[in-house]
Amino acid sequence: MTRSQVDGVPRPVMLAIAGDSASGKTTLTEGLVGALGEDRCTSICVDDYHQFDRTERKELPFTPLHPDCNYIDIMEQHLQLLALGRPILKPVYDHATGSLVRPEYVEPKEFVIVEGLHPMSTKLLRACFDVMVFLEPPEEIRHQWKVQRDCAKRGYTPEQVLADLERREPESEAFIRPQRRFADIVARFAPVPGRQDPPGTPLSAELFLRPTIRHPALSNVLTDNLRNAMHLKIMRDKDGTPTDCLHVHGHASPEEARQLEKAIWEELETAGGPPEQLGQITPDQRSEPLALTQLILLYHLFQARDGTGR
Amino acid sequence: MTRSQVDGVPRPVMLAIAGDSASGKTTLTEGLVGALGEDRCTSICVDDYHQFDRTERKELPFTPLHPDCNYIDIMEQHLQLLALGRPILKPVYDHATGSLVRPEYVEPKEFVIVEGLHPMSTKLLRACFDVMVFLEPPEEIRHQWKVQRDCAKRGYTPEQVLADLERREPESEAFIRPQRRFADIVARFAPVPGRQDPPGTPLSAELFLRPTIRHPALSNVLTDNLRNAMHLKIMRDKDGTPTDCLHVHGHASPEEARQLEKAIWEELETAGGPPEQLGQITPDQRSEPLALTQLILLYHLFQARDGTGR
Repeated sequence: MTRSQVDGVPRPVMLAIAGDSASGKTTLTEGLVGALGEDRCTSICVDDYHQFDRTERKELPFTPLHPDCNYIDIMEQHLQLLALGRPILKPVYDHATGSLVRPEYVEPKEFVIVEGLHPMSTKLLRACFDVMVFLEPPEEIRHQWKVQRDCAKRGYTPEQVLADLERREPESEAFIRPQRRFADIVARFAPVPGRQDPPGTPLSAELFLRPTIRHPALSNVLTDNLRNAMHLKIMRDKDGTPTDCLHVHGHASPEEARQLEKAIWEELETAGGPPEQLGQITPDQRSEPLALTQLILLYHLFQARDGTGR
Repeated sequence: MTRSQVDGVPRPVMLAIAGDSASGKTTLTEGLVGALGEDRCTSICVDDYHQFDRTERKELPFTPLHPDCNYIDIMEQHLQLLALGRPILKPVYDHATGSLVRPEYVEPKEFVIVEGLHPMSTKLLRACFDVMVFLEPPEEIRHQWKVQRDCAKRGYTPEQVLADLERREPESEAFIRPQRRFADIVARFAPVPGRQDPPGTPLSAELFLRPTIRHPALSNVLTDNLRNAMHLKIMRDKDGTPTDCLHVHGHASPEEARQLEKAIWEELETAGGPPEQLGQITPDQRSEPLALTQLILLYHLFQARDGTGR
């Protein structure tokens, strides 16, 4: 154990998962918490730092995507405290009722996952993290996910959700998507263009593994026999910077995926094998691309804990 | 203006007012906030840092006077942040309903008054303050005040309040009264023993002005013609340490009190005269001993702001 300490308090490893509303943050987070165990891993959602409840927001000219709708300064304070191993009294926004309720005492554990709309939106926030991830599914997929979730769990009609998405678009562009450029990993879950996979085939993952942190040495692992379902290539990102891009196809068989998982896991020199909890979308639905994405994140969390990361 | 700054953020002057339940903390605080103005002075009550709501406390073997019933660690964090000029998201306990509700964003102003049961209970808390006050009315007076307030404002019956006071006594002794020894000023509002003042005469104030901070030079001011209603003497405190003790009798006339107020105010080299808002108990009831106590606290707040205090 080489975790750094401040005044004798161990510092947790901090992972940011940013992305627009319904981009898959919670699904990604839940698998990681499940794999690490709740005794070792805490997750918080920084969308709880709303300044206004749902009724108050109706009077306002901006949506929750606007930084002014959130206590970004308090978010900065709290993430700094967590990064130093200190507890916080976190505000709680009840998505079911749209109201701000009794806050919650949160103590950091060995790993802290911070997901939400704005976790990487300021320099002070970003300074709190060991690893930063941005999720960017294609917009049409994200819109489907948002309609499904907000109607099922938050009491909205599909028309309301679609109107809301339209209203939010300028602020998505101005405040959410710009966080992408600070991410160490950008993950895009999407169908493979031009393929006619059978219904129920999981989405493929396209992972931009940027050289801001040291990634597992996949170029040795991805030998010819895997290239059908997975491949790694160097490319230029949108902004022109070089990056590795790992594709894991949704039609990859569990056996193919396991080979890659095992290779990544072995680099960690950690006992056991990859945790079973990775890749769960629902209790009955598993996705190898999701499992591999989570495994790469676990890899980074363990590297950061052992001080062999950045 | 000589306020010290941290990273360009001005640091407020911090005053603690500690004391048991219904010891007069809010009355003392309100006069100070009124005198300073809400644009220059914020007050918070640290009894909001309850861990449990009223229903949950019913199951517990201790009362709100027990530190374990409060998030003392979060209180420490928040007071440190305020002392550094930073905002906090303060929890809110609703005394009317006994529940923990939506937290409140608090920004420190030039002066921050922190009142409650435990503001001076740990070393880290005490380190946040420029001036610390402890209120200790005689227990029978405090019990009367508590019955009056809790029945009028918090929905209890007198029997419930008295039973509660009895239940709380061991924890008052163990956790509240020990804070007295850290106070720069101990204030005791009480009737003068042996005098038969007419009904409606305000309580007298006995102020222990300890040499932990530099008090106004009252020994020059309290000349013979004032000695009837006010006097200053050196004495040993309960614990044997020397202290000044200022008595201001409830029967002091406004004219007598004003002479002393004016003398204290002149030491401050501040424009104008003592603020009118001092000494209000209710809109129709004024107390010269309370006004003088508040004025001495104002004196210390201004001294601390100008860096001429400790």
